Amino acid sequence: MTAGIYVSRLGLKALLITKNFGGQIASKPAQIDNYPGVESIGGMELIARMKKHLESLNAQIVLDEVVSLTEKEGIFTLEAKSGKMFYSKSVILTSGTEPRKLGIKGEDEFAGKGVSYCAVCDGPIFRDKAVAVIGGGNVGFETAIFLSEIAKKIHILEYSDQIRAFEENIKAVKEAGKTEIITNAEVKEIKGGKLVSGLVYRDLKTNETKELSAEGVFVVIGYKPLVSYVQNLVDFNGRGEIVVDSETMKTKTPGLFAAGDVTVTPYKQIVIAAGEGAKAALTAYKYLKGNNIEK
Amino acid sequence: MTAGIYVSRLGLKALLITKNFGGQIASKPAQIDNYPGVESIGGMELIARMKKHLESLNAQIVLDEVVSLTEKEGIFTLEAKSGKMFYSKSVILTSGTEPRKLGIKGEDEFAGKGVSYCAVCDGPIFRDKAVAVIGGGNVGFETAIFLSEIAKKIHILEYSDQIRAFEENIKAVKEAGKTEIITNAEVKEIKGGKLVSGLVYRDLKTNETKELSAEGVFVVIGYKPLVSYVQNLVDFNGRGEIVVDSETMKTKTPGLFAAGDVTVTPYKQIVIAAGEGAKAALTAYKYLKGNNIEK
Repeated sequence: MTAGIYVSRLGLKALLITKNFGGQIASKPAQIDNYPGVESIGGMELIARMKKHLESLNAQIVLDEVVSLTEKEGIFTLEAKSGKMFYSKSVILTSGTEPRKLGIKGEDEFAGKGVSYCAVCDGPIFRDKAVAVIGGGNVGFETAIFLSEIAKKIHILEYSDQIRAFEENIKAVKEAGKTEIITNAEVKEIKGGKLVSGLVYRDLKTNETKELSAEGVFVVIGYKPLVSYVQNLVDFNGRGEIVVDSETMKTKTPGLFAAGDVTVTPYKQIVIAAGEGAKAALTAYKYLKGNNIEK
Repeated sequence: MTAGIYVSRLGLKALLITKNFGGQIASKPAQIDNYPGVESIGGMELIARMKKHLESLNAQIVLDEVVSLTEKEGIFTLEAKSGKMFYSKSVILTSGTEPRKLGIKGEDEFAGKGVSYCAVCDGPIFRDKAVAVIGGGNVGFETAIFLSEIAKKIHILEYSDQIRAFEENIKAVKEAGKTEIITNAEVKEIKGGKLVSGLVYRDLKTNETKELSAEGVFVVIGYKPLVSYVQNLVDFNGRGEIVVDSETMKTKTPGLFAAGDVTVTPYKQIVIAAGEGAKAALTAYKYLKGNNIEK
């Protein structure tokens, strides 16, 4: 959205193609307290403000999903899921991330039947029930904090021998009091009948196999970049993130830029992604217009 | 301010030393229309909101100016103008920029007597008077737009053979109608008696020396990084900007980071500087606490 705001204000003919607005923020319990100048705001409200800001400008917005991107002689062709084709001299990739899957038995089978990747979407279903949160990082803790208002009991299961969350999140989980943390836990299977009833995990210290009752299983083991449509126009790092020059947001293909969580940027934060969107837009402008602007 | 917000929220003991808040924004006529999520806001109002956000956290704020920074065995020592000394395990440099001077006859002599580097501060003095704006970049145009409401006549003088401003700024200056643009103009001298009465410039195309009447001369030929206190702890590029790894905001000295306009970042924009402040704070946190946080 920031790239769209900048590109529009620079007087370029801008098209923004997206499935939905807000990306990761829209999918998790988000009270945003670290967007500078806005002390505290709900994630959906911040998304709405940015969208309104974007809509006040002249960018064309298309609700669709890009399934392939190709380039020939300096012209990019974008094919959308709807079958529509779009053509552009420059493209900024800001497709962000999607939740990682565990890849274990029962995960796909019980998707929507107790297995969830979106606490904001599905959390309210589990009022006064026991739930498990897979993943002891910051998002896992934020998920547990959110679920503390709803669920009866929460278990956080973390694969490594220690939790990896900011102190403020650890403190908030402790204060809410409903959460137990299990480290060294390798989740092996999600079980149930029509709906999820629990999960099986291995204790990596003792090598014992254990079972845990839970009607909801929230998988928050991180995100992976949404890049399947890009193919060979960019390079990827070991995490599958798009390699960019972080000073200009250039990829290896002239005219093709990337910004935000889809890139190698080590921190996935709103204001950082916004800053990168602005950088990418300014570099795209320079690419299209020559270097005829002040630094 | 963003680095301060992030560092405080991460639970570190944070000290913010600054002469004043808002840096460049506070010194120029700024209606901010490109801070994502805030459609349009006065520069001073955005600064006030960020300051309030910062003050809602536990950072200690000291109004002072750092005059020297040294490092010994992993401990940084900061000496302030007041004579106070501060010690820290990690430092984030966000000292921004100051206006460049022309370095010509009359400039220092008439400083505060018609020569100004801050249209917001001094513009209102020149109601219904003729003024000159030296510099045909974006800030020069923004200055002319601001002065259009006040002055009778404005001349923009630009050294190069073309103006280098965004189209929206060029359009706004044209619409206001009071401004004449002179390119190929090398300003040689600022003249006057007790106060400024005009300036002398050379037409670089014809090599003629010309005079222009003006009671106010606004020098907006760019900014230079404020780095005199840093010395040999960092590397500089040809513009005197601090070299950083734009992915992490690391300088060449472990524990020393830099963010915003003081760095090599090619675009001097609020949301970009804010994103970098957040990056620097997160890298400082990792430096101090080890790598024990989620990416």
